[in-house]
Amino acid sequence: MGVNDISPARPVRIVEVGPRDGLQNEAAFVPTVEKIAFVNRLADAGHTAIEVSAFVSPKWVPQMADAAEVFAGITRRPGVRYTALVPNLQGLARAREARVDEVAVFPAASETFSKRNINQTVDEALAAARRICDEARAAGLRVRAYLSTSFGCPFEGAVAPARVAELAARLIERGAYEVALSDTIGIAHPRQVSDVLNEVTRRVAAANLALHFHDTRGTALVNVYAGLEAGVSTFDASAGGLGGCPYAPGATGNLATEDLVYLLDGLGISTGTRLEAIAAASRAIEPLVGHLLPSRVFRALQATKGRA
Amino acid sequence: MGVNDISPARPVRIVEVGPRDGLQNEAAFVPTVEKIAFVNRLADAGHTAIEVSAFVSPKWVPQMADAAEVFAGITRRPGVRYTALVPNLQGLARAREARVDEVAVFPAASETFSKRNINQTVDEALAAARRICDEARAAGLRVRAYLSTSFGCPFEGAVAPARVAELAARLIERGAYEVALSDTIGIAHPRQVSDVLNEVTRRVAAANLALHFHDTRGTALVNVYAGLEAGVSTFDASAGGLGGCPYAPGATGNLATEDLVYLLDGLGISTGTRLEAIAAASRAIEPLVGHLLPSRVFRALQATKGRA
Repeated sequence: MGVNDISPARPVRIVEVGPRDGLQNEAAFVPTVEKIAFVNRLADAGHTAIEVSAFVSPKWVPQMADAAEVFAGITRRPGVRYTALVPNLQGLARAREARVDEVAVFPAASETFSKRNINQTVDEALAAARRICDEARAAGLRVRAYLSTSFGCPFEGAVAPARVAELAARLIERGAYEVALSDTIGIAHPRQVSDVLNEVTRRVAAANLALHFHDTRGTALVNVYAGLEAGVSTFDASAGGLGGCPYAPGATGNLATEDLVYLLDGLGISTGTRLEAIAAASRAIEPLVGHLLPSRVFRALQATKGRA
Repeated sequence: MGVNDISPARPVRIVEVGPRDGLQNEAAFVPTVEKIAFVNRLADAGHTAIEVSAFVSPKWVPQMADAAEVFAGITRRPGVRYTALVPNLQGLARAREARVDEVAVFPAASETFSKRNINQTVDEALAAARRICDEARAAGLRVRAYLSTSFGCPFEGAVAPARVAELAARLIERGAYEVALSDTIGIAHPRQVSDVLNEVTRRVAAANLALHFHDTRGTALVNVYAGLEAGVSTFDASAGGLGGCPYAPGATGNLATEDLVYLLDGLGISTGTRLEAIAAASRAIEPLVGHLLPSRVFRALQATKGRA
């Protein structure tokens, strides 16, 4: 049976993306001081990789306008990597000034999404990623790469697994240490996860892959499970499931960290994080985003508290 | 890999429990005429097994007080089994009068839950189940058995898989054609599903088992996946994820049918149901329960409609 393919001996590394991918997609602007407290709480919860912010245009992404201030305000906990998204060399320069531990680039696997999201063709985005990799590595910074729309594009539909494999391999060649295959619109299902990973792992070792799921259709956790069965050990998640889409009441954003940790705890897989402490971070941020956080486990914990 | 253990050639049978397990656990009383329309819509969506209501005490479960009226009002679609929960012989008599196609009994695997939920010891509940089986089968009715708290009890905690296996075997011996192993409080995780099924299938064939998950901690779908890998082909689900717990804002009830069908469609597994038609049934019931339905897929469909 499948569960026997999943070894509890292999720990999972969680990349906490709540402060960036989560808050960036919330309608409300969370005050800088609260973002700082959020990041510190997430580090206290045992996270070792936290995507703190993005050095992007404040005109396009006002929620991340305070990236430098957030980095200046956080307490750097030893053993934690504080990372940021950068779209170009200007972003990288700002990130270096803010003393980030690592940067992330974010090309897409489909042309239409690439044009609409970052106004570049896929090749242009890969060229930009190479420039960022070269300069970041010269400065001693690791580069992570997201590969958006790896499981489908909102404009083009299906994306061929061979195309995803080709782009992932090129990103590793260009100097990224890890490619996070991203289900940007939350449509992936486990057979597709298995199919894409079968193809990608011909070109890139599973150890250099991460999976980044959105829970838009409730499949994020079952997709993680398929990823575990296929040998992937790094998963992105967002505290509380932050990142709900403003125009879609009840629509959900990233896979919730609490839900991921609950699953992994149940499977006996170590993550180094503490569920209750992650929920404490979510609890503090919830009143600031103007809606209930969608994490099922967080909600269940809140309900228990309500009864106690 | 695990997904290869799941054959698309083996269709899945969904038991739609929204009108009973869903509406029973909603705070609002849904008018009889709306319940009837809901059941008819679910049959139109391709369901072949619909748990319509429960012949229980209206004092304890006021939401189900109109069981007979609902059965009298529905349009019986050929090929659809319209079923009801019965706790005792009086309930069975009422169910027969209402011309149900099948009844369900609901003993528990843990003593404390059994005492608190139905005020019987587990042995007393099994004896009652036997009496119901004998009389139902004499009348030509099939009996399904839920086994509550098969994955954990809110009062006693863990329940031994061997105990679940023993009780499931006794229910089949007593005349039930199927035992739905039920995660009453929504705490199961896939390794536990695998462990419990390993033990239970020593005594009861997978073909005589169903899995009944609640999505309280977001694990319902990944548990279904583990169940599919273990060879189970029957799953309970509730349209829209109806059945949220009234005292827990945002806490979720049953596995949502839409989420289940989205997963199975993705896996290429046939269910005979149409996702859009199930969502149409949910759409009509949502305004009557006083809160947004928690199904992720339903919410995503609603958001798409909102944008169109």
